[in-house]
Amino acid sequence: MPKNLERFFNPRSIAVIGASRDLITISGQSLQHLQSHGYAGKLYPVNPKYDEILGIKCWPSIESLPETPDLALILINASRAAEMLRACGKKGVPFAIVFSSGYSEVGGKGIEMQRVLAAVAAEYDIGVVGPNCQGMINITGNVYAGFGSVFFTGYDAGAVSMVSQSGGFGFSVMNLASKDGGVHFRQMVTTGNEIGVSTLDFLEYFIDDAKTEVITAYIEGLKDARRLVDVGRKALAKKKPILAWKVGNTEQGSRAAASHTANLGGAMALYQGAFRQSGIIQVEDIQDVVDYSRAFRCGKLPKGNRVAIITVSGGAGILMTDECVSRGMQVPSLSAETAEKLRVIVPSFGSIQNPVDVTAAIFNDLSLIRRTLQAILDDPNVDAIAMINASLQGELADNIAAEITEIAAHTDKPIFLAWSARDELARDAYAKLDALKIPHYKSPVRCGRALAALSAFAHSLRRDEVRLKEPATVLSDTTVHALLAGRSEDLPEHAAKQALAAYGIGVTRETLAINAAAAVAAAQAIGYPVALKVQSPDIPHKTEARAVKLGLNSAASVAAAFDEIMRNARAYRPGARIEGVLVQEMVSGGIEAILGVTNDPLFGPAVMFGLGGIFAEVLKDVSFRMAPVTQSVALEMIDEIKGSAVLKGARGALPSDIDALADAIVRVSAMAVDLQDHMAELDINPLFVFPQGRGVKAGDALIKPKKY
Amino acid sequence: MPKNLERFFNPRSIAVIGASRDLITISGQSLQHLQSHGYAGKLYPVNPKYDEILGIKCWPSIESLPETPDLALILINASRAAEMLRACGKKGVPFAIVFSSGYSEVGGKGIEMQRVLAAVAAEYDIGVVGPNCQGMINITGNVYAGFGSVFFTGYDAGAVSMVSQSGGFGFSVMNLASKDGGVHFRQMVTTGNEIGVSTLDFLEYFIDDAKTEVITAYIEGLKDARRLVDVGRKALAKKKPILAWKVGNTEQGSRAAASHTANLGGAMALYQGAFRQSGIIQVEDIQDVVDYSRAFRCGKLPKGNRVAIITVSGGAGILMTDECVSRGMQVPSLSAETAEKLRVIVPSFGSIQNPVDVTAAIFNDLSLIRRTLQAILDDPNVDAIAMINASLQGELADNIAAEITEIAAHTDKPIFLAWSARDELARDAYAKLDALKIPHYKSPVRCGRALAALSAFAHSLRRDEVRLKEPATVLSDTTVHALLAGRSEDLPEHAAKQALAAYGIGVTRETLAINAAAAVAAAQAIGYPVALKVQSPDIPHKTEARAVKLGLNSAASVAAAFDEIMRNARAYRPGARIEGVLVQEMVSGGIEAILGVTNDPLFGPAVMFGLGGIFAEVLKDVSFRMAPVTQSVALEMIDEIKGSAVLKGARGALPSDIDALADAIVRVSAMAVDLQDHMAELDINPLFVFPQGRGVKAGDALIKPKKY
Repeated sequence: MPKNLERFFNPRSIAVIGASRDLITISGQSLQHLQSHGYAGKLYPVNPKYDEILGIKCWPSIESLPETPDLALILINASRAAEMLRACGKKGVPFAIVFSSGYSEVGGKGIEMQRVLAAVAAEYDIGVVGPNCQGMINITGNVYAGFGSVFFTGYDAGAVSMVSQSGGFGFSVMNLASKDGGVHFRQMVTTGNEIGVSTLDFLEYFIDDAKTEVITAYIEGLKDARRLVDVGRKALAKKKPILAWKVGNTEQGSRAAASHTANLGGAMALYQGAFRQSGIIQVEDIQDVVDYSRAFRCGKLPKGNRVAIITVSGGAGILMTDECVSRGMQVPSLSAETAEKLRVIVPSFGSIQNPVDVTAAIFNDLSLIRRTLQAILDDPNVDAIAMINASLQGELADNIAAEITEIAAHTDKPIFLAWSARDELARDAYAKLDALKIPHYKSPVRCGRALAALSAFAHSLRRDEVRLKEPATVLSDTTVHALLAGRSEDLPEHAAKQALAAYGIGVTRETLAINAAAAVAAAQAIGYPVALKVQSPDIPHKTEARAVKLGLNSAASVAAAFDEIMRNARAYRPGARIEGVLVQEMVSGGIEAILGVTNDPLFGPAVMFGLGGIFAEVLKDVSFRMAPVTQSVALEMIDEIKGSAVLKGARGALPSDIDALADAIVRVSAMAVDLQDHMAELDINPLFVFPQGRGVKAGDALIKPKKY
Repeated sequence: MPKNLERFFNPRSIAVIGASRDLITISGQSLQHLQSHGYAGKLYPVNPKYDEILGIKCWPSIESLPETPDLALILINASRAAEMLRACGKKGVPFAIVFSSGYSEVGGKGIEMQRVLAAVAAEYDIGVVGPNCQGMINITGNVYAGFGSVFFTGYDAGAVSMVSQSGGFGFSVMNLASKDGGVHFRQMVTTGNEIGVSTLDFLEYFIDDAKTEVITAYIEGLKDARRLVDVGRKALAKKKPILAWKVGNTEQGSRAAASHTANLGGAMALYQGAFRQSGIIQVEDIQDVVDYSRAFRCGKLPKGNRVAIITVSGGAGILMTDECVSRGMQVPSLSAETAEKLRVIVPSFGSIQNPVDVTAAIFNDLSLIRRTLQAILDDPNVDAIAMINASLQGELADNIAAEITEIAAHTDKPIFLAWSARDELARDAYAKLDALKIPHYKSPVRCGRALAALSAFAHSLRRDEVRLKEPATVLSDTTVHALLAGRSEDLPEHAAKQALAAYGIGVTRETLAINAAAAVAAAQAIGYPVALKVQSPDIPHKTEARAVKLGLNSAASVAAAFDEIMRNARAYRPGARIEGVLVQEMVSGGIEAILGVTNDPLFGPAVMFGLGGIFAEVLKDVSFRMAPVTQSVALEMIDEIKGSAVLKGARGALPSDIDALADAIVRVSAMAVDLQDHMAELDINPLFVFPQGRGVKAGDALIKPKKY
């Protein structure tokens, strides 16, 4: 498949296969749209029924074309699309958009048809977009290659590029954001079933495309999700935000899995983890794209998350504060020096606290605005300013906008405005702001949300710079490889914990005993009290089988417990293979966490962390990251869960050994990478996290091999 | 204070006190706005400096006016406002708006000035709005009584009435919702510091106002929050939605609110509880007011929460599904009969599952639209329809709108549309929908959100109808009254649990023993094992004092424990008053919950429920309701917490005794009402909730009396 999509978006010639004179139909529309929007390249309608369409010579077949087009639009019935694609392949066409529906999305025969289409694409190395899609628009190149109501209008060119798995919704985003929101697009492509060029391929292209400043994606699912984190990080490094929808969040995951990790690892949690890990910004609605695009186009990233709010409306200031704080920003106290400066500017019935309520009195003297903004910009506690001008309009608005642009031109701190005057009443003022790309919003809530998105992106960038400087933890253990390779049965507790130990992860002291005497000897060596548990691949639920005994304090009780466990296990499942009884130290004083790996078929190995029991299972309070993770990312995973206060010593408890916990997460992630060909799942539950300096210990563990 | 605000919004005459010829100033603006917007009543500017202003005779004083105005606008400096208000009082003026700032919101002397102002209002029984506000607009009456940029334009009259504690933000809501959102207002009033007529007074007026259909409020804090639930329920009964902002939700936001209008009103959790309890709908931003107002104006409430989604864009259908489901709606399977009907209508590459993907092919034959809508409307599993028409435009759009309005006119199920064509491209279609008040939205997300708000309101209404039929639980106990009245010290565990028992709430079996022999006798009666705990008003932290012993199994250990506890307690706090040692049954097998009462100074008694320990303290996973609560409301409280699955038998546990738990909540609420003059706080922690049929038991409890 051709790697560089430049030619796809800027084809020198386009074949329109199945072009039709019926301009109502999908096959009729595409040629018309290309022509009417002034596509400057060569157009080759292909249809044996016509000599010309819309005054353009029509060709009987792809073979008959006088040159090899850069792009073919395949607009015929699904049943004949593969045949046409093959003809394109023979002709050497590098890119094709297959518009036809009726493939995998309908199931049955469609699945086979899609397989055939993909095989043809692979055979001839064609970059296929689709099938079941609505085409592409490259606005700067006047390439309107597709169909639908939004193609009947032209669009202003801008700096936003979008890839969407939905044609209808994707084009409506471009249409509304551009026409109603004033945020203009550069390229827009819909990918449908994605047998060839994928959403991530397009994202990579947009990242490299110098004229794309903001990237948007509508995602239902990624077949190559494994690349998501790398693509996101690449965008982050280039300071290009990716604004992404991930939909289908409420659907029950199709992956039913017995163990915790897989249960919780429903696809959405993995996407969330990957998005957080790589700075991709989730959006909910079209307005977010408009608002965030405006935010990012200001070209300034705040150095920290501290915003000073300047307002003439106390109410709007409160709303803005709530919005910023609830989205991770701080509204810090201003320095004493700043307060001193403000005291002589702000009227007594205003407020020199942050949010600074300057009151409408400030509009009486423009120099006050300048002094206020400058004083706050000079404050070392402030990384960004959000100013609320309420419904200020007319000439005064214009003058104030001039002051603001003057100040904004000489600072690298972002200045955002919440300004609710309608466009017609502050046209000149808004034009001044737009000329300097100063973001402004009608509502303080939208303004706060957009600033918080910018701030979060800047935070992700700083975080990722830290990560890049960290050493990578690479671990490998050939014994564990050998143990798992080709295995189809789960690795039970004792073996799983030996595997953990091999990767340097703390486990309980324990010995597998095959008779009562050995159990007693093991208990003596470990030290009382001990726990005894049956080890059998046929008895996953040991407690249910009454094959667990806790808190045994003497040789006699250990010996008796051994016998009872064996009896109960045999009664519970006659014929069960019993490997022995595990004699284990009793652990006390730790907080129970869970730590696991899901080796997702699409994402690859992902690490999951949470507090134990109800927290993970009922409240789903867990964090995911794609492996490998470094120490700082592991610390983020710990911070991210709502229950993290528990580990930090809530309710009078001792603070836990967070460093050791982060180290265990890093090691589990390295283990997941090392064993990615063999391990489907790892589940450590509980992982005991002890007080500071005392480490962590896996209390129980299970490894599911990849089934062969 | 005059009760009927009719005269406030429709004054026959208005005195403008401090009217000025300087039309730039606040005092100059108000007269001008009243005049320019065509106020038909009599205007009396009052200012000894002028004979006339804007051609209107000006009066030297309030006393000199030839009649008593219905409304006085007080536009002078705070320092003289009380004096003017007194003159209004003497003249018999029923309503006054005090615009001046510099009262409680600035602290210091301002607080005293506000007190004086309130005293004058009370003395003369004047309905005062403000101070520190921006006035009022009654659009139908052309009463533009206030100042600010939004007063320079006229507004179309509509059916939304709003009260706002913020002038700047409130008026921007009206301005943008009306001018840009096309949702028109009827009345708009800003209340500032609220020394007289309160937000809730205005809400009550709007509920009674026949021509108000939708009510909006911006709230920083309610001094009379105790009335909130009743007001909300009154609106609910009249099927008038209250769309409310409650701001200051973050710690920093709440601090900003204190310095804005000084309307401090209890914790956010209490507002959330009261809103849920009474069907008040929280909004985040101006667009919500626009979208939800359109939803409610359809005049149909769904009978249940099941929505059928019909779409021509698969992507938009998924977004809509996510949005509806995440906001409490169901997207149910359609009946077999409906599926049969759809099978012949929907193309094979579409979907007859809900969301039904009819594909754009449906637009080729209008009768298909009609048949599809009718089939789905006839489905007994469906309470509402959301139809997604993507960017459909032009004549076809018009024809389809005609089909939809025809169908919608003959059903009582709401039909909502997500339709992303821009206004200019589907003008006629949208006009047809608007004429029938069929809600339509540019984005499927906004559409889903608005439909979910309508559905939630309908759900609240059904819920409240159930509540109204439930018996009220009224309990009273004179002994507990006597125990608490006049008391200033906390009621310790044993006494608090006796109080609980008096209200029929289960407690652990226990006896207060004053010597070892009594402790042993008590233990025998209760049955081993028992726990021993010191009881002393001077030792609130019993464990810290090493004055608790658990799991005592014999007479000897009880006797020894008694002595040790007494020794430790005395050592821990020499001179502590010790009432004895509580001998208590050891409880096992229950789930630990917490149940409490906060007798909030503004809300009055509120009941709080959650799971114990970390759930409540770290995760804040608790639910609040204002007392009294009935059984169904108690069940909602239990359902509402995220951890409720634990009580229903998550992780293989037995389902808990939810009925007994709800009964305990109802009894605690009745106790809170009965003791509202004496009890500041009740804290049952833990409340053991046993498996079904086995009830609940308070494990520990504390009552804080109201301090006298």
